[in-house]
Amino acid sequence: MTTISNRPFNTLKIDDSCKRKHTVTDDDLIMFAKASGDLNPLHLDDVYAATTAFKQRIAHGMFTGGLISAALAMDLPGPGTIYLSQDLQFKRPVCIGDELSIVLSVIEKHESKPIVTLHCEVTNQDDKAVVTGTAKVMAPTVSMTVQTVELS
Amino acid sequence: MTTISNRPFNTLKIDDSCKRKHTVTDDDLIMFAKASGDLNPLHLDDVYAATTAFKQRIAHGMFTGGLISAALAMDLPGPGTIYLSQDLQFKRPVCIGDELSIVLSVIEKHESKPIVTLHCEVTNQDDKAVVTGTAKVMAPTVSMTVQTVELS
Repeated sequence: MTTISNRPFNTLKIDDSCKRKHTVTDDDLIMFAKASGDLNPLHLDDVYAATTAFKQRIAHGMFTGGLISAALAMDLPGPGTIYLSQDLQFKRPVCIGDELSIVLSVIEKHESKPIVTLHCEVTNQDDKAVVTGTAKVMAPTVSMTVQTVELS
Repeated sequence: MTTISNRPFNTLKIDDSCKRKHTVTDDDLIMFAKASGDLNPLHLDDVYAATTAFKQRIAHGMFTGGLISAALAMDLPGPGTIYLSQDLQFKRPVCIGDELSIVLSVIEKHESKPIVTLHCEVTNQDDKAVVTGTAKVMAPTVSMTVQTVELS
């Protein structure tokens, strides 16, 4: 049984941050293709991808966006967070085997509502930014610990 | 065998649009949870979700973002498109069974580079916007038809 705890609005400070790591797998791309319906062969077909400028299969850009959203939902602020908006800049391709670091940091707290803005950056094993962006969320106002769901 | 064709930059006109439909399933949420690592019970646990303000499980916000990215990659401009940036506003929750319409429309063409800006809107069966946003992409410059990958 795994539980996750949140960081309520009143405990958050500017520059608070979290870091998650994720190594990209073939399964990630297949799962994301199934979930999104994006069956473009650039993500799924080695032979086709070798003929493109990328020379190999690359992850869907929004897959990396999904890693950012997971960090918001699981870590900072965590359970109880309501997603308001997100912008994403896709800087470099992400390939299978890439070791990604997802870092979120609080850059702004709203005065009168529990709204928080976070800078989001995903870098690869060469410390190069692959995706950067900004998220705006309604942070939870009460402490909460919830049990995550184990998927087979 | 399914093929998809693109819309090269020089054929695109302002207000060109595409529309895809998708009915949200339990499997979608499970697939997206696996792909992103977002195991928050709001998306996966009926009993927990019933205790929240949403009263039922809701889709991950970025799942709906993934539907937008799939429309860009598969339809408009389609194969050969390179994703540059995306912003998303999450307007309303998306639930299992919701019948979503994903509409993209060209709103700007760059003068000197094959860069296109598209308005993106996802509405539900009640014609209410659930996610809106803007995508900037490098459009393909040559016509291309590619075979999509069938996933079991």
